[in-house]
Amino acid sequence: MSDLIELAGRAAASRPRVVIVGGGFGGLHAAKALRYLPVDVTMVDRRNHHTFQPLLYQVALAVLSPADIAQPIRTILRKQENTQVLMDEVVGIDARARKVALESGAQIEYDYLALATGATHSYFGHEQWAPLAPGLKTIEDATEIRRRVLLAFELAERQMLEHGWHPPLNFVVIGGGPTGVELAGAISDIAQLYMRHDFRHIDPAKSRVLLLEGSPRVLAAYPEDLSAKAEQTLKRLSVEVHTHTQVTGVGPGWVEAGGKRIDAAVTLWAAGVQASPLGKMLGVPLDKRGCVIVDSHLNPPGLPEVFVLGDLAHFEQDGHQVPGVAQPAMQMGDYFGKALAADLAGKARPNFRYFDKGDMATIGRMAAVAKIEWPFKGHWSGFPAWITWITVHIFFLVGFLNRLSVFAAWIWTFFTFTRGARLITGSQQLPGWQDKGPKPVGDQPETEKVAAGS
Amino acid sequence: MSDLIELAGRAAASRPRVVIVGGGFGGLHAAKALRYLPVDVTMVDRRNHHTFQPLLYQVALAVLSPADIAQPIRTILRKQENTQVLMDEVVGIDARARKVALESGAQIEYDYLALATGATHSYFGHEQWAPLAPGLKTIEDATEIRRRVLLAFELAERQMLEHGWHPPLNFVVIGGGPTGVELAGAISDIAQLYMRHDFRHIDPAKSRVLLLEGSPRVLAAYPEDLSAKAEQTLKRLSVEVHTHTQVTGVGPGWVEAGGKRIDAAVTLWAAGVQASPLGKMLGVPLDKRGCVIVDSHLNPPGLPEVFVLGDLAHFEQDGHQVPGVAQPAMQMGDYFGKALAADLAGKARPNFRYFDKGDMATIGRMAAVAKIEWPFKGHWSGFPAWITWITVHIFFLVGFLNRLSVFAAWIWTFFTFTRGARLITGSQQLPGWQDKGPKPVGDQPETEKVAAGS
Repeated sequence: MSDLIELAGRAAASRPRVVIVGGGFGGLHAAKALRYLPVDVTMVDRRNHHTFQPLLYQVALAVLSPADIAQPIRTILRKQENTQVLMDEVVGIDARARKVALESGAQIEYDYLALATGATHSYFGHEQWAPLAPGLKTIEDATEIRRRVLLAFELAERQMLEHGWHPPLNFVVIGGGPTGVELAGAISDIAQLYMRHDFRHIDPAKSRVLLLEGSPRVLAAYPEDLSAKAEQTLKRLSVEVHTHTQVTGVGPGWVEAGGKRIDAAVTLWAAGVQASPLGKMLGVPLDKRGCVIVDSHLNPPGLPEVFVLGDLAHFEQDGHQVPGVAQPAMQMGDYFGKALAADLAGKARPNFRYFDKGDMATIGRMAAVAKIEWPFKGHWSGFPAWITWITVHIFFLVGFLNRLSVFAAWIWTFFTFTRGARLITGSQQLPGWQDKGPKPVGDQPETEKVAAGS
Repeated sequence: MSDLIELAGRAAASRPRVVIVGGGFGGLHAAKALRYLPVDVTMVDRRNHHTFQPLLYQVALAVLSPADIAQPIRTILRKQENTQVLMDEVVGIDARARKVALESGAQIEYDYLALATGATHSYFGHEQWAPLAPGLKTIEDATEIRRRVLLAFELAERQMLEHGWHPPLNFVVIGGGPTGVELAGAISDIAQLYMRHDFRHIDPAKSRVLLLEGSPRVLAAYPEDLSAKAEQTLKRLSVEVHTHTQVTGVGPGWVEAGGKRIDAAVTLWAAGVQASPLGKMLGVPLDKRGCVIVDSHLNPPGLPEVFVLGDLAHFEQDGHQVPGVAQPAMQMGDYFGKALAADLAGKARPNFRYFDKGDMATIGRMAAVAKIEWPFKGHWSGFPAWITWITVHIFFLVGFLNRLSVFAAWIWTFFTFTRGARLITGSQQLPGWQDKGPKPVGDQPETEKVAAGS
């Protein structure tokens, strides 16, 4: 490793230096997998906290508080003595010289690099849609969505109280994958169940939730029978599901889809993801979403000391790409530990193999769909799938998050029909919403109206 | 009431219309006190939530989540049928025509007005200090302070890790009233106890907490013996208490006080409050902080249909001004109900009288000072006062907030020495902090250094 000698100002490393970038499921499992290995680990993340992303939509919809599903990375790793945590952003990777450049100006050398920076929203080249239709990847995204959804009801109530009418209270969710389905179901829950006694002038239950999906079915990555179940369940919750519907425009207060302009008090984006830009810095082949194509050791071609983990990795198994969800990311992190242990022992690295236990998405208060692969195979839906979902997520939370508070919040929410975290913080504006004054005269397309309540 | 007839476009009121502005302790108690009266109540607040201000500092210091101490005003009042809640901001009051103007452009008429918009920070004419030294009045303030305090430790760790030194990790709290004392004690707790296992390169216990107070003693509104106890306790917690110390300048990364410039990684403002600007709109006499001078019915002179409640009211009893804390605000709100009931019954209004049960301030993990007036008189300090504080605040929380989650968080924090809500969200910059690079050569005043840890 002649490169190391060129780097000035640092003592020669006595143990291999491992840099892990990203404290999501992949990165955290990678760090934990190195716990007993004779290596020096630096975990770098631009945030101070790990976010339990599968429950992020519950923060967005006021069931949980941000701190219920997030924990400081350094607290999670506090007892792991070979590991230090650095809050900084990686802005460059020199894969030849084996060092990463940080936003603060410093550089860190590595003998091994694990890149686990995940994915972010993709607006398919329409970046100007981002402020109009926020997506859901971070705690900040979740509180922003919460702010918008709750504010829409408040502004409609104000408009009714002051002027006797209000514009359509439509919630438009773009994208029918798991996040879109969970958001649409949960907004419907809020409107139908949790808000109904709080307003005097609007009827929240008469608001509309529209789910727009470009492909022929929701949950396109799931088996067809579960997609059908999900669509059924959504319709039972009064969500209007529009498949085969391409969104062609997003503006303040409206969405254009299928050649029609739809009023939208709140627009949410759950349509596309793209890989974190760090993949590009390796100078290796990427797929069309920017994911790094890796071999059976999770290495990009020609870089055996670089491992790409989680959503940022494009890994194919049995002819299919492993999906960008929590399970594969955790397993990839665990694999990283095995691969390093093999290296240190002078043995050949094992091959990574994804062990698929299945996948689940909730749809509102008491329903879910589950494609179960282990310990038995099956397609579940409705209440049994929902109970399974709850159980699995409680178990997942054990260990690095305070599961008790989440469990307490769920019990509270379930039985009291109130939501504990209905806070509007920050700006009190919505894109496209000004005071609408008295009702305008003239035609409005009937389909776009929401009956004014009370 | 001839004014009402002049107002066009509204049906004549069949019942007196009551407008309450502000959903703090005063406003909420006022609304609840009208529950069974034949009046139509509109509660106006520019926020959607009531904030339990006495526990705000625990959000600022990562013990509690924002939602633990805040609840939507409309949820609190959901079952009160004569009351509607409007999220809007009052921007004008026409006391002659008896109407308030709203930010959204509408106006509301009233037969009775309760003004309970409280107080905000006063920077004594130095408004440019506000972004450099945030105060603590709202949920947003609390998360901003949390962000800065946690970020300071992260940035110091990063600086140490990358460059082997860090600038002084000083937390400067300006103002030695209850809020300043609580903040200083709680920051010391965080640094001394809660962070100690999380960092590898800095020693959080070696950070400094400075409490600057212009007057001769902290907690100047308390009896002298309790001030002395408080100062003693703060010193035991390693807080450096500087009384007789006027702050003359605040800049990015520093505070100027007593002719000296002090490095400050984080500066917090707890020095002064001023009344909400709504008092001015009544066109009646104000005191020097902008509070409305009210008579024994809590009315300003000449406006018997206007009641000023809580921190916005300047009410004197037995030659002393009633302090701007939660107890008097609640009692003023309750009184409002009695005064209206008397009016409706055609009886004379009773006089308001503040019943002082005492006052308390916590100082860190296990100490407090309490001036108890009821059910017996006494000055308490240390652990007994702290237990009293906990008990009283748990009882206060009953009814309109989810006290269980707060209690659980306290137990958790107390026994595990971890804090559940250590989230940094938003910007990752601190005023005055850039990457400091390698240690500068040349003199730094010794008193201003913090020993670099590890």
